[in-house]
Amino acid sequence: MKKFHNTPKNNQSPSKDQLIIYGRHAVISALKNPNRKIKKLLITNENKQEIEKLNLNISYQITEKKDIEKILPHDAVHQGFALYCDRLDSVDIRDLIAMSENKSRCHILILDQVTDPQNIGAIIRSCAAFETLGLIVQDKNSPLESGAMVKASAGTIEYVPISRVTNLSRAIEILKDNGFWVMGMDGYATTTIDKINKSGKIAIVMGSEGKGMRRLVQENCDSSVKLPISPNVESLNVSTAAAIALYELSKD
Amino acid sequence: MKKFHNTPKNNQSPSKDQLIIYGRHAVISALKNPNRKIKKLLITNENKQEIEKLNLNISYQITEKKDIEKILPHDAVHQGFALYCDRLDSVDIRDLIAMSENKSRCHILILDQVTDPQNIGAIIRSCAAFETLGLIVQDKNSPLESGAMVKASAGTIEYVPISRVTNLSRAIEILKDNGFWVMGMDGYATTTIDKINKSGKIAIVMGSEGKGMRRLVQENCDSSVKLPISPNVESLNVSTAAAIALYELSKD
Repeated sequence: MKKFHNTPKNNQSPSKDQLIIYGRHAVISALKNPNRKIKKLLITNENKQEIEKLNLNISYQITEKKDIEKILPHDAVHQGFALYCDRLDSVDIRDLIAMSENKSRCHILILDQVTDPQNIGAIIRSCAAFETLGLIVQDKNSPLESGAMVKASAGTIEYVPISRVTNLSRAIEILKDNGFWVMGMDGYATTTIDKINKSGKIAIVMGSEGKGMRRLVQENCDSSVKLPISPNVESLNVSTAAAIALYELSKD
Repeated sequence: MKKFHNTPKNNQSPSKDQLIIYGRHAVISALKNPNRKIKKLLITNENKQEIEKLNLNISYQITEKKDIEKILPHDAVHQGFALYCDRLDSVDIRDLIAMSENKSRCHILILDQVTDPQNIGAIIRSCAAFETLGLIVQDKNSPLESGAMVKASAGTIEYVPISRVTNLSRAIEILKDNGFWVMGMDGYATTTIDKINKSGKIAIVMGSEGKGMRRLVQENCDSSVKLPISPNVESLNVSTAAAIALYELSKD
């Protein structure tokens, strides 16, 4: 293991395309990802052995807990791990489609205007759990990868393909042209998701909690579908709704 | 509408059995709950009309945004609503069982050592969405009702019965004696939840993320069951797992 010889300044902010990942699980997953460009690893002394055992040949700098806290958001649960690194690249939608080519059944999740990084992180974790092919978001209205998002994904962001597209309606058209049936999640739909035909390739679109999908996005869908929830409850949290939808689609 | 004539001190903390509920949805749900003992409602001026329209005959005090912020946790999204009130009473487990008596099919969720108030709030929201009969937690290791929990429940905590018991194993025994089949959620189980017989009365036990159920609690269950997730993913967030389990149980 190499160690840094120079001591970087405290309170150093990551540059524009960088982020700071924190928390044991999130940092270790990032270190194991060959596509993650690592810049600098800070750990507290008690985590030294754990990092050494991974045999990843990565430099690190032993840092006091309080100095790690200085570079992270208030209340960030870092467990003595902080990693400066580059954001992961967006996956081209054509590459997502290529991944679907030899599959008779697969699912893609599309998020329209979901802006909370923790919800997006939790949704990425559900994509990993239910082997969703990938996630599509609109570049302009979706937050960039952040420490909070990576943490909420429990490290699964390292291997769930995410495609940031300019135009969601155009992305939906491309999916339809390539054999995907595109369903919008809509509380006013008449069909519940457990009653649909789950064979083939399905893309599911979810809007933000409250606002839902934008009209143009909704109009581009092949059909709409809802979760069977109590009429007394207005909605579910978007990450809960996504988890249930992906679970249902993944079932035989 | 009455108004307070005296101006309470800023920075006033709620007393031991009280909490401060914040956020539009959470506060309005609490105001509509006849069992919620209201102490003091603070709203910003722009919310006055909305409160007046509810016709609830409740006193309120117009308060500056910054003064509401002083009494709430850092970063609390209050939308100009804060309500001092008493915590809701715990429901006796015998009353939960009485509620199940004329039902041929119903579900109870039991949480063992789930300590994050936001996870518990999100779980309460899922209980409401999937018409779970009620929630049982161990008094000693479960956080008291808090503003963050009420907010995460999106106001559904006002009508989901919650029973705080001294001994979870004893509660499981009582449920079994009253016709409930008790299933523990366990990642090592061989049966997945979509494959079980869902008729009759079922109680489902979930442990904390990471630690799972305590051994004694697990041993008291009739059977164990897991969610069908990818072997590449260690676990789901406890509130996501609970939502999927309750969804699956609620289905025909």
